[in-house]
Amino acid sequence: MEKESYVVNGFKASAVAAGIKKGSGLDLALIFSEREAVAAGVFTKNKVKAAPVILSQKNIRDGNVRAIIANSGNANACTGNDGFRAAQRTAELVARELRIKPEEVLVASTGVIGAPLNTDLIEGAMTELVRTLSPSGIPRAVEAIMTTDCFPKISRFQGEADGKPFELVGIAKGAGMIMPQMATMLCFVLSDIAIDADALRRAVVASAEASFNRITVDGDTSTNDTVVVMANATAGNGPMVSSDYESFSSGLTRVMGELAAMIVRDGEGATKAVQIIIRGASTAAEAEAAARTVANSTLVKTAFYGQDPNWGRIMAALGRSGIEMQEEHVDIWIDDVKIVEGGTGKGIKAEEEASQRMANKAFSLTVALHQGEYEDRILTSDLTHDYVTINATYRT
Amino acid sequence: MEKESYVVNGFKASAVAAGIKKGSGLDLALIFSEREAVAAGVFTKNKVKAAPVILSQKNIRDGNVRAIIANSGNANACTGNDGFRAAQRTAELVARELRIKPEEVLVASTGVIGAPLNTDLIEGAMTELVRTLSPSGIPRAVEAIMTTDCFPKISRFQGEADGKPFELVGIAKGAGMIMPQMATMLCFVLSDIAIDADALRRAVVASAEASFNRITVDGDTSTNDTVVVMANATAGNGPMVSSDYESFSSGLTRVMGELAAMIVRDGEGATKAVQIIIRGASTAAEAEAAARTVANSTLVKTAFYGQDPNWGRIMAALGRSGIEMQEEHVDIWIDDVKIVEGGTGKGIKAEEEASQRMANKAFSLTVALHQGEYEDRILTSDLTHDYVTINATYRT
Repeated sequence: MEKESYVVNGFKASAVAAGIKKGSGLDLALIFSEREAVAAGVFTKNKVKAAPVILSQKNIRDGNVRAIIANSGNANACTGNDGFRAAQRTAELVARELRIKPEEVLVASTGVIGAPLNTDLIEGAMTELVRTLSPSGIPRAVEAIMTTDCFPKISRFQGEADGKPFELVGIAKGAGMIMPQMATMLCFVLSDIAIDADALRRAVVASAEASFNRITVDGDTSTNDTVVVMANATAGNGPMVSSDYESFSSGLTRVMGELAAMIVRDGEGATKAVQIIIRGASTAAEAEAAARTVANSTLVKTAFYGQDPNWGRIMAALGRSGIEMQEEHVDIWIDDVKIVEGGTGKGIKAEEEASQRMANKAFSLTVALHQGEYEDRILTSDLTHDYVTINATYRT
Repeated sequence: MEKESYVVNGFKASAVAAGIKKGSGLDLALIFSEREAVAAGVFTKNKVKAAPVILSQKNIRDGNVRAIIANSGNANACTGNDGFRAAQRTAELVARELRIKPEEVLVASTGVIGAPLNTDLIEGAMTELVRTLSPSGIPRAVEAIMTTDCFPKISRFQGEADGKPFELVGIAKGAGMIMPQMATMLCFVLSDIAIDADALRRAVVASAEASFNRITVDGDTSTNDTVVVMANATAGNGPMVSSDYESFSSGLTRVMGELAAMIVRDGEGATKAVQIIIRGASTAAEAEAAARTVANSTLVKTAFYGQDPNWGRIMAALGRSGIEMQEEHVDIWIDDVKIVEGGTGKGIKAEEEASQRMANKAFSLTVALHQGEYEDRILTSDLTHDYVTINATYRT
């Protein structure tokens, strides 16, 4: 990774090993905007919300945010009032050191649920964390928020608004508890564009819907999912016209889409990323339901792992998804290899060819229902021995 | 297994190796009632229904059934019109050999979806299948319907109605594609009781709801699930009074409950059977939703496998189940060991003790929501390396 290229005017980042995570790895990251910035975010819809999520949702409400502090190794979830006080104290420590208001700080945590977060470790690390803030610190910050991730996730986009170039740099962590209806675990995107808080909010919601809400690893929803976008208006563009908004919004969707795809590729134990595409559903909701049911079926996901074009499991998943369907109208492809026509594989001698496509690290599974005009797609991973190993031994 | 004890007056069974399944194992079973019998059944709710399910639903409608033929090695699902003709021809072959009507025959299939069923193999085996019918043939029949099952599933109950003893013997196969809202793959129960078709139907639906619809292995729903109960009125009891119905119905629930528990214990790759108990939900539907969400969470199921009382994953599953809940009111136990009180594990030093309970082959996980009066329970299994091995290599 060329660290030089992940710079956004006016933003600095840093990371330290504060001792929150087992071992001596980086576990505390700070992102700081040198000037006022607007921010918008989407957060977990799980009714069990981690303390930092509750605090960040409150602090982001007016759109003015100066800093984000994120730790790995401890989710600070299901920790009661002590947990909320720990999140609050974390924000105060950052604010004191950066001479900003605690309400201008967002807090994010990822790691084990239920363990108390020791803020003394954060206090002890704060001076160094602020001292080492640097414009080139973003790649180091992403390392500090990794848990079971195998590689850091970072994405960049350059666009133009009002004739002025602008930057978007996004970082994310994922791996486990990734599921529909959700942002990923943590994603932070920085931009130097000038945009008002309402427009930013609109762009964030739309981009998250098209990216993080279209992936699944294990069907489970984290208590900590957080996507935050900050923009500091140093790009020099004037008030946005609609083509500027489109440029920014499509760039944001692309950055989030790349990060979302990286999260699936790096899903716990995953060896394959599979795009599930449903065509010809009666309604948008049914297209989505069908895509999610196929994408979360453990039998389908183990068949992906085994490179087995076991279309019977796909038909069975469609059949229990609750959608309108006529079995005898269903066609299914692996990439461009048709394996089912009219609801059956009869007479189709393509399983060998389909299995070869499934040996690739990425492929698509397309289902044509021929019921209506609606389409949806969900990116999923395979279910592997390593998934079981990681999750049967994660805490011990 | 003492084969002698699984006899029901007036019923015979047999099994042969017809060559449908790979290898030389038993794969075709026949159950025959020597006299008229009433039958009732519940079938898969998957919209993709196997041909034998469609045929059996039609033939069972008037309640008069004389024979059940079941094969393993081929599900005859997603096989189009040819599949339906194959199921129909199977019933005709049985009827011709037994000199009964094709409409008195139920057909059940289990195995790979989408492969054509070669009825010539069934025709070639029919003479021997009928010739070897025997009152002591039930344990052999259950062997013939096994696929990835590790052990045969058989259960017996003896009761009394109208002062006359009656028998119930049930057989089942399970292992994969076991999921909520569903009967198991295949279950046949025989009784010599005298009961009218309507009462039998009522008892079957209630018993299936309390047994097979309360288990899950992988959250997937088969296209072939079939539960059929036949009763031939040889026990000599007169018209049933309500205490007779209660005796029969509770016996049937017990037999189905035992078979359902065996299916979970023998779930693909399973090493543990875990009873998920939800107490204090606001509504019955919410109690069930919470139980199913916890029971199907891959993160919770891998934690069971790892003997890890990872209650954070349980809280996260509850939080995304869509129920009314207040995090700070939730208590959780493993057997009688409390691991969460008021939504947190703070101050509870019971993880070691809970982990020891989870080393057992069976334990319970109880959640008290303190929201209302409703309770539900679902029996589930753990998610293991062997589950992935079995399902990534099942067809190849």
